[in-house]
Amino acid sequence: MTEKLGAPLAQPIFERIAIIGVGLIGSSIARAARRVNAAHIIAIADTSPEAREHATALKLGDSVSASPREAAAGADLVVLCAPVGANAELAKAIAPALKKGAVVSDVGSVKGAVIEAIAPHLPAGVHLVPAHPVAGTEQSGPDAGFATLFLNRWCILTPPENADAGAVARLRAFWEALGCNVEVMSASHHDLVLAITSHVPHLIAYNIVGTAYDLEEALRSEVIKFSAGGFRDSTRLAASDPTMWRDVFLNNKDAVLEALGRFSEDLTALQRMIRRGDGEGLFNLFSRTRAIRRGIVEAGQETAAPDFGRPHGEDDKGGA
Amino acid sequence: MTEKLGAPLAQPIFERIAIIGVGLIGSSIARAARRVNAAHIIAIADTSPEAREHATALKLGDSVSASPREAAAGADLVVLCAPVGANAELAKAIAPALKKGAVVSDVGSVKGAVIEAIAPHLPAGVHLVPAHPVAGTEQSGPDAGFATLFLNRWCILTPPENADAGAVARLRAFWEALGCNVEVMSASHHDLVLAITSHVPHLIAYNIVGTAYDLEEALRSEVIKFSAGGFRDSTRLAASDPTMWRDVFLNNKDAVLEALGRFSEDLTALQRMIRRGDGEGLFNLFSRTRAIRRGIVEAGQETAAPDFGRPHGEDDKGGA
Repeated sequence: MTEKLGAPLAQPIFERIAIIGVGLIGSSIARAARRVNAAHIIAIADTSPEAREHATALKLGDSVSASPREAAAGADLVVLCAPVGANAELAKAIAPALKKGAVVSDVGSVKGAVIEAIAPHLPAGVHLVPAHPVAGTEQSGPDAGFATLFLNRWCILTPPENADAGAVARLRAFWEALGCNVEVMSASHHDLVLAITSHVPHLIAYNIVGTAYDLEEALRSEVIKFSAGGFRDSTRLAASDPTMWRDVFLNNKDAVLEALGRFSEDLTALQRMIRRGDGEGLFNLFSRTRAIRRGIVEAGQETAAPDFGRPHGEDDKGGA
Repeated sequence: MTEKLGAPLAQPIFERIAIIGVGLIGSSIARAARRVNAAHIIAIADTSPEAREHATALKLGDSVSASPREAAAGADLVVLCAPVGANAELAKAIAPALKKGAVVSDVGSVKGAVIEAIAPHLPAGVHLVPAHPVAGTEQSGPDAGFATLFLNRWCILTPPENADAGAVARLRAFWEALGCNVEVMSASHHDLVLAITSHVPHLIAYNIVGTAYDLEEALRSEVIKFSAGGFRDSTRLAASDPTMWRDVFLNNKDAVLEALGRFSEDLTALQRMIRRGDGEGLFNLFSRTRAIRRGIVEAGQETAAPDFGRPHGEDDKGGA
């Protein structure tokens, strides 16, 4: 796995970019784009005064504005980095300021609904190329971002069928400069795959932690105490941004319900094995699943260190 | 959080200990006990020739034997560290060799069934004090162990009602020397709490990964590729030792089915929120669950670093 971003580009890919929403993802794009010189000028907008204050203090952009429209004016690339539920409003707000030939993109975890929300508002001559960098941490806000967040991660582009090939190529080059591998697929396929690899795992994690939260007080404090038995792993995903995830589930309902249906059927079968004492069935399942993690480590999408590389005191076997 | 084991004890707590089964947990006990001088002589037994070979090469004990009975002979503490399904056979095997006054313990993730399996085989004058160090990684075998595995973790003792107070006190001192906080509770309460904090989270993780495994080939390879969206977190628990976990579910059936029932009810409610587009309900749940992770970090049971401290290249914000 590469551990460093490439050397700064001799020529920026976009002269001016606008980042609308400067949370974990937006601020990481700003940092990475600056580091590798993927953009010459970086304009930032955020509706939260606190986020703007931090973005200014962190020098994340050449300008920090409260107005998405102001930031988008004259930009060659506008990246919407707000929760997906905000995209329709943002697209409407920036539309009048968009330069002819500009690329409008996003970073949302849902693509079908996002295209429906954005596309109708864009003027002719502006290129919509939705994107989804499959990367993140459970933390939120401008301070949580870092330039190498996208390193060795995949970024999925879901251009509409009639998309401008040059616009797609420039956006691909931009994400590659930020450290990503880029893949192109349809929005509907993206939404199905991500329902399985991201949305349902988050939903299940929220549910495991929610069930524990609803326990009587005494039991809940024991759950916290003995969480190293496995429970604590779920709490990471379940500490993710609530607004972002509410919007994901509202906007990818069909694929999530379909994936959740598969999960629930399988869980019922597993429950039945336990009730009947089917040791062989359990053993077979538990052996198969090991192979998947090996595949993920080999694909460079997970650390090979035990326990995710969590610190374990002086004898630490984890880390990089 | 303490990051180091204490200085070696002037006097070992047990003159001679036997570790029966030298996997992740057994080998970590051997390393930690040696480091802090919690035992003078460490006898190891394992039925696997490969495990014995590694244990010998790693110098984990003063003797390494194929016979549990041989290792247990004359020991002041015998710790059964095999999958819980093996305990009845092991207890039967070591019984004739046990010294009067010896403490017999284990490390199993299930306590009620373990007591039932072991107790009937022990001769009078031998003290059964079951234990469960709530610690581990997804890796298995003698090489996976390390001396600080138990540092800042909880070890739960579930002595029977008539247990010898001196035996309980010595075992408590032993685990404290290995870095644990020790708590005493009933076996049935342990099995309920661990069903929630460990067994069901593992079951759910196995199920998430199992569902993905059963996808058609093309989709499965995409799941691996885009696993950084959240899926990969589940794969850690689902890479745990299959024999150990089969035995856990076979031996803690009632508590697991009870906890799983709560989980499934809550998941159905969540599914209904998604189907009905109940954004407020989703947001409220997703906000509550954040608090639990904060509690776990504050309790010293989880790293505060984002993404579990996974390596993120040169700008790493993770680690210790």
